[in-house]
Amino acid sequence: MEIVETPEEARTVGEGTRGLVPTMGYLHEGHLSLFEEARRQCDVVVVSLFVNPLQFDEPADLERYPRDLDRDAELARDAGVDVLFAPPVEVMYPEDPLTTVRVRQVAETMEGEHRPGHFEGVATVVAKLFAALRPDRAFFGRKDHQQLIVIRRMHQDLSFPGEVVGCPTIREPDGLALSSRNVFIPDREAALSISRGLESAAEAVEAGERAAVALTEIVRRRLALDTVDYVTLASQHDARSLDRLDRPAFLAVAGRVGDVRLIDNLPIDLVGEMFVPDLGIRLDRPSLLYSR
Amino acid sequence: MEIVETPEEARTVGEGTRGLVPTMGYLHEGHLSLFEEARRQCDVVVVSLFVNPLQFDEPADLERYPRDLDRDAELARDAGVDVLFAPPVEVMYPEDPLTTVRVRQVAETMEGEHRPGHFEGVATVVAKLFAALRPDRAFFGRKDHQQLIVIRRMHQDLSFPGEVVGCPTIREPDGLALSSRNVFIPDREAALSISRGLESAAEAVEAGERAAVALTEIVRRRLALDTVDYVTLASQHDARSLDRLDRPAFLAVAGRVGDVRLIDNLPIDLVGEMFVPDLGIRLDRPSLLYSR
Repeated sequence: MEIVETPEEARTVGEGTRGLVPTMGYLHEGHLSLFEEARRQCDVVVVSLFVNPLQFDEPADLERYPRDLDRDAELARDAGVDVLFAPPVEVMYPEDPLTTVRVRQVAETMEGEHRPGHFEGVATVVAKLFAALRPDRAFFGRKDHQQLIVIRRMHQDLSFPGEVVGCPTIREPDGLALSSRNVFIPDREAALSISRGLESAAEAVEAGERAAVALTEIVRRRLALDTVDYVTLASQHDARSLDRLDRPAFLAVAGRVGDVRLIDNLPIDLVGEMFVPDLGIRLDRPSLLYSR
Repeated sequence: MEIVETPEEARTVGEGTRGLVPTMGYLHEGHLSLFEEARRQCDVVVVSLFVNPLQFDEPADLERYPRDLDRDAELARDAGVDVLFAPPVEVMYPEDPLTTVRVRQVAETMEGEHRPGHFEGVATVVAKLFAALRPDRAFFGRKDHQQLIVIRRMHQDLSFPGEVVGCPTIREPDGLALSSRNVFIPDREAALSISRGLESAAEAVEAGERAAVALTEIVRRRLALDTVDYVTLASQHDARSLDRLDRPAFLAVAGRVGDVRLIDNLPIDLVGEMFVPDLGIRLDRPSLLYSR
């Protein structure tokens, strides 16, 4: 594996189709599953590691975001990554950037409402990575489903070649969706109320429930968060909220336990004429987040 | 020369370094000079031809914008272009686009003030062309100097590889800057007052004048337009207006003759310690706009 700091190097190592997995580092099994999928689909696997200041709406959150390049490099190498692109801030932003990429509509609901500027930061830095690294495929977790939709739409609207691939959420053995922020959670039981709520909703979907108000209420009844930002059934196509489950959708939850903000969601795919909830993949042992 | 309708084809014809010249068609010697420069610097010359609805703030202007693919294809072929990328609207916008690329500051003065949304449309469609066609170099005329700055900044901020190259303005024998819109001008003498004003300013610069107010006044005294939108001395780096000519700059003019809006400018480069006005290149015979 090569560790490089410039896009030119990241773009030219290796030959064949290139798969990109953008990350902010502090890798866990969620990222590793994306590396594996990229490995399966592409000749060269490029992982970017950049804690993007633009997408943090809270300076304290940026400040404490965990960083450890040696640790991440070792995990990436073990996972068969070919190129780790870890640019210093000066390479990504030689001058104060004036350009922003904005996605209307799909970026304005849910996370867009609760984290002003967040998706603009995400869309802008991912557009930069697409422009600079020219991947044939880029891989994102379904855990951030609205983000996946924002990126997919940006990718299409700006005519980037290739494909944006969404991959299943990886969960800890108790069901908590993996996130680098999990190490800060002050009350595990409270945090687990999210995935438990989504599991109950998945059962209801399988039993035939289609009303958004019923599905969101099932989730809300189980939630034990300190604050709930939203519980919403939204379209997979444009992230607009739905009254009924009548197309591919996702049931999204966001809230806080102490000062840690958590999000999770249940994608509900349409397979033939069947609605199939995607609860993701559960690890069979504790995440490496707690040991490495 | 190949005429293609999809980015995939435009991206894969030919081998070696790729030069892109984005146009809205109805080609004239201004475009041809960009093709020549691309020919000199690159192995494969790609010309895009797309009248981008996003950048027209006036529907009437979009409506009457001249279009003639056969004519343009013949001119491009004669000029040694390798690929003419002429996408139908459905290829460029398969769905109503939600994504916009905005460049703050440099796109907010002058044209940005007078044509709301214009530069957002330009930056977005040029980002699309850069993303889709992956040029090593892209060529733009200095006639639209602020546009060149907006595009250069977008290109840098989004980490597109390669280079944005600015080329001299091509003028008709009487000095009028070439533009596809020239065929609609109702009063040639009035239109010529712009280039004459800029010529006078160029003489003043060469005689040592450095005050913005003096230089703009020299231009304004000669102008015989029906309306003047602005006469501004601005920085080549960030398009901000200057009080004094103390760095690379351009003296920009915009206004109307009848209902035809015209812009022109005098780039003033710093060569060593000398300020050198760039009046562009004058054709020695009438433009092909009037005969083909």
